[in-house]
Amino acid sequence: MKKQLLKIVKIGGNVINDEIALFSFLQDFASLDGPKILVHGGGKKATEVSSAMGLQPQMINGRRVTDEATVEVVTMVYAGLLNKKIVAQLQKNNCNAIGLSGADANCILAHKRIVKDIDYGFAGDVDAVNSKFINVLLENDVTPVFCAITHDKEGQLLNTNADTIVSEVAIGMSSLYETELNFVFELKGVLKNIEDKNSVIKQINLEKYKELIDAGIIADGMLPKMHNCFNALEKGVGKVKIGDASLLQSDNKLYTTLSLK
Amino acid sequence: MKKQLLKIVKIGGNVINDEIALFSFLQDFASLDGPKILVHGGGKKATEVSSAMGLQPQMINGRRVTDEATVEVVTMVYAGLLNKKIVAQLQKNNCNAIGLSGADANCILAHKRIVKDIDYGFAGDVDAVNSKFINVLLENDVTPVFCAITHDKEGQLLNTNADTIVSEVAIGMSSLYETELNFVFELKGVLKNIEDKNSVIKQINLEKYKELIDAGIIADGMLPKMHNCFNALEKGVGKVKIGDASLLQSDNKLYTTLSLK
Repeated sequence: MKKQLLKIVKIGGNVINDEIALFSFLQDFASLDGPKILVHGGGKKATEVSSAMGLQPQMINGRRVTDEATVEVVTMVYAGLLNKKIVAQLQKNNCNAIGLSGADANCILAHKRIVKDIDYGFAGDVDAVNSKFINVLLENDVTPVFCAITHDKEGQLLNTNADTIVSEVAIGMSSLYETELNFVFELKGVLKNIEDKNSVIKQINLEKYKELIDAGIIADGMLPKMHNCFNALEKGVGKVKIGDASLLQSDNKLYTTLSLK
Repeated sequence: MKKQLLKIVKIGGNVINDEIALFSFLQDFASLDGPKILVHGGGKKATEVSSAMGLQPQMINGRRVTDEATVEVVTMVYAGLLNKKIVAQLQKNNCNAIGLSGADANCILAHKRIVKDIDYGFAGDVDAVNSKFINVLLENDVTPVFCAITHDKEGQLLNTNADTIVSEVAIGMSSLYETELNFVFELKGVLKNIEDKNSVIKQINLEKYKELIDAGIIADGMLPKMHNCFNALEKGVGKVKIGDASLLQSDNKLYTTLSLK
């Protein structure tokens, strides 16, 4: 039997920081037919609140180092303010959203990242996704909205990379649904020429992905993102789309589709 | 058919402000048999964060006046930090908790309090409880943990009195369950003599309640709390218990039970 299509969408800082862009995007998301899941990253609000509270944000290799005071701030901002603002907006748009951290109903279990060279503090690496409970929500026409906070089932909340969360959730749901992962970021897709914002490569399969890495076209910050996407495809996710905030609009044709073959 | 017993428990600032007391209480709550719901109020953390962010908390008649900046702070602290800390602790204690605001799955719909003499700002008065969805959670052995934030389904989050939330949730669930409401506060129960912390009145029915008001024994801050409880009893809640943080311990005998007759 053909499985039902589940769309899983990730939005990051660039959409979240601008309330007008965010609310407009949430209208597009709310109007998607069928079961869907939203995952959101952080945004500059956490830095604002940290500064106001006298904390100095620390970043190593683009990842926030999370001490105890910082995990409190990101829990406040991501699981509290951003998550509930998004849920309230989706409710306004008749999407029956529910906001979740990984601790809620043990949806996303993680462990504190093992210290090798760098101690990232209370940063989580994902171990398991509670696809059974997430499916209970979907079957009741409820739309899960995940923030990037997980837990270790020992009482510790963990700051977790939102790209990782969305691909782990998509992988976890792939046994029950045909899954499509949508990454919304600041560009219209993977670009052939970084100077030309419209030079979107429309299709990338595994073979082409390796060519693009060798050619230096996929580099820097795109490398972990693309690695993450192909990992998801290899573990059962049906399709990955990458594009800007207009990705979900039905008349949008300019985005990148990733597939294995 | 006899309905199943559902215990609904409310904790307030005095338990929440002290992490050791809170975690000990959550162990008691986690070990309760059968379906259960927790509702928590705020605590001094919201005031701390407000001050750090340069906001001046404003109170009228014991209720926080909620401007836009304040609704952001209480959403961060109540729906974010406190709610997720509580959920993570319950998960640690093998209670499959899920943290919710009223916006989540439209669980508690409210409206901005109508301005009569005082404009309380973004303070919510409860209109409806989504008992159907709350029951889906309970039937899946998931324990809802509500913070005192609701929404108006127009995108606005609303700061809401936690005593009101817990009684509205209990009333809402009374069509499906035999309900018992447990109020945890700073005293061992309703006291005959406020100077004697052990002078607990063990049973109060509607008749005695009126006598105690006339005698001036129920006064001040206890008046709205007791009014709230008897309102719940009149609207279908089976039993109300009031006591301190040891209320849920099976060997605790010192608390007040309220009933209509």
